[in-house]
Amino acid sequence: MRIAVIGAGAMGSIYGGHLSLKNEVYLVDTNTAVVEHLQKNGLKLEENGQDNMYYPKAVSSTEGLEPADLVILFVKALFSKAALSGNKSLIGPDTYVMTLQNGSGHEDILGEFVPQNHIIIGTTNDNGAVLGMGHIRHGGVGETNIGMLVEDTEGFLPKLAATLDECGFQAHIQDNIQQLIWDKMFTNVSLSAVTALLSCEMGYITENEHAWNMTKQLVLEAAAVARGMGLKADDEKLLEKVRTTSVNSPNGVTSICADIRAGRKTEVDTISGSVVRASKKCGVPAPTHEFAVEMIHALEGRK
Amino acid sequence: MRIAVIGAGAMGSIYGGHLSLKNEVYLVDTNTAVVEHLQKNGLKLEENGQDNMYYPKAVSSTEGLEPADLVILFVKALFSKAALSGNKSLIGPDTYVMTLQNGSGHEDILGEFVPQNHIIIGTTNDNGAVLGMGHIRHGGVGETNIGMLVEDTEGFLPKLAATLDECGFQAHIQDNIQQLIWDKMFTNVSLSAVTALLSCEMGYITENEHAWNMTKQLVLEAAAVARGMGLKADDEKLLEKVRTTSVNSPNGVTSICADIRAGRKTEVDTISGSVVRASKKCGVPAPTHEFAVEMIHALEGRK
Repeated sequence: MRIAVIGAGAMGSIYGGHLSLKNEVYLVDTNTAVVEHLQKNGLKLEENGQDNMYYPKAVSSTEGLEPADLVILFVKALFSKAALSGNKSLIGPDTYVMTLQNGSGHEDILGEFVPQNHIIIGTTNDNGAVLGMGHIRHGGVGETNIGMLVEDTEGFLPKLAATLDECGFQAHIQDNIQQLIWDKMFTNVSLSAVTALLSCEMGYITENEHAWNMTKQLVLEAAAVARGMGLKADDEKLLEKVRTTSVNSPNGVTSICADIRAGRKTEVDTISGSVVRASKKCGVPAPTHEFAVEMIHALEGRK
Repeated sequence: MRIAVIGAGAMGSIYGGHLSLKNEVYLVDTNTAVVEHLQKNGLKLEENGQDNMYYPKAVSSTEGLEPADLVILFVKALFSKAALSGNKSLIGPDTYVMTLQNGSGHEDILGEFVPQNHIIIGTTNDNGAVLGMGHIRHGGVGETNIGMLVEDTEGFLPKLAATLDECGFQAHIQDNIQQLIWDKMFTNVSLSAVTALLSCEMGYITENEHAWNMTKQLVLEAAAVARGMGLKADDEKLLEKVRTTSVNSPNGVTSICADIRAGRKTEVDTISGSVVRASKKCGVPAPTHEFAVEMIHALEGRK
């Protein structure tokens, strides 16, 4: 397959690197320093304690390239639209675009570039971290869940799953991928949001009754929105899952909280923001998520 | 008149001191050190740059005392119920109870001790600060607005207004006192809440668009609740008033924010909490105020 991975961060590098073992892969990034480093030295993934080398074709511009069979989007969701607009030559009438980005609702942006039956959404349980220029730690390996929101008229998903599997991923085709995306999101839009708002570790969420009340309010509101979107959401089970996550990792620091502490912009628009957008679509109100999104942005602006 | 002022903080001392000029006044406080100091040295109010002495009867217990004509409640609203329960001997069938405490809805607690037509609610624009033991700065002098939620069947309000006036206050009887209390409260439940949540000065509310969005959401929700309570609330005028307050005092620190920074318990239950209670009464939802109340309590619990 001819594949373009846009975004050479940790996850983009892991997918781009592995897929290049059996496919023609372009790894696209606007950071020319990273691209030049990859062109000269290749990509180094630390996996199971050893460094493995991969050689996707790193490029900072895709102008003049032929359309790809598959474009995988691995930029921060904030930059999704710009990333697709800036690499339009990759997208032809036969191109599929896939997003495994955190949060939900990315299909709306993808839909501006390809028809619904060429959009693949999903989640990945692999994880990674940038160690240095062109050097990524590939941490846990997990399922790559993929699916479509409409019928897979051209039978592309089985082909994609086979391609992923033969490159070391664990692909699973999911009939109800939206449900799976939301299932993963409930913890993020409650526990992550509250730890960021309070600048606290994950354990405080269940140690302090008021922090737990905040968390509960966010979970229940998101669950109502999910039901409004036609998905399943069991209030008690969701609360129990979030509670367990807090109890099991009391010293855990969520990425949104770490971003706030470091004065960085967060991904809250992708996470809690996607509940707000879904709320507007289905008409089930999400005022607390709206407030939380605004507040996290207001905290980003604080010194 | 025979008057008991419960709570010898800044405001209780100012009212107790001044009213003692022409009335028999008991100044009641559970802090025995303060009471003994007042008994020995009297009460010193710094007013217009000079120290004036006042001699209300300071007591820490009212057991065995005859009922008063008027009980004025000046404890933190958190302690209102305990303060009235602990001084029941002051309350007879003819006793009026008055609250000028911040926030709204205090009449609910007062109603557990006296009938509706013996409850006086209101606001004071006087202000004060504790300088030391028995030493209070009496800052600005302003209107004391008083009113009842039912008909003043016994014609008590004019007598009370005259008593206040002859002791140096500027009493105004208000036919729609609840409206006035809410008018004063909108800024408190938005600007004060947001500055506490973000630990920021008053100016940030209008400098940062997201902080302003938070503020707006709180104002509009409170205004809807006010209308649900049968009061008037003009969204645009309220927003403009809050905006002006922020712009005029960019370096101002609200008391809830100062409390959070100092690790003290705040009065948020009295302020934003009263919007939540009103919301439950009238059925107009106030989820953002609920969330803000929980969050301020969660922040109180943080080191």
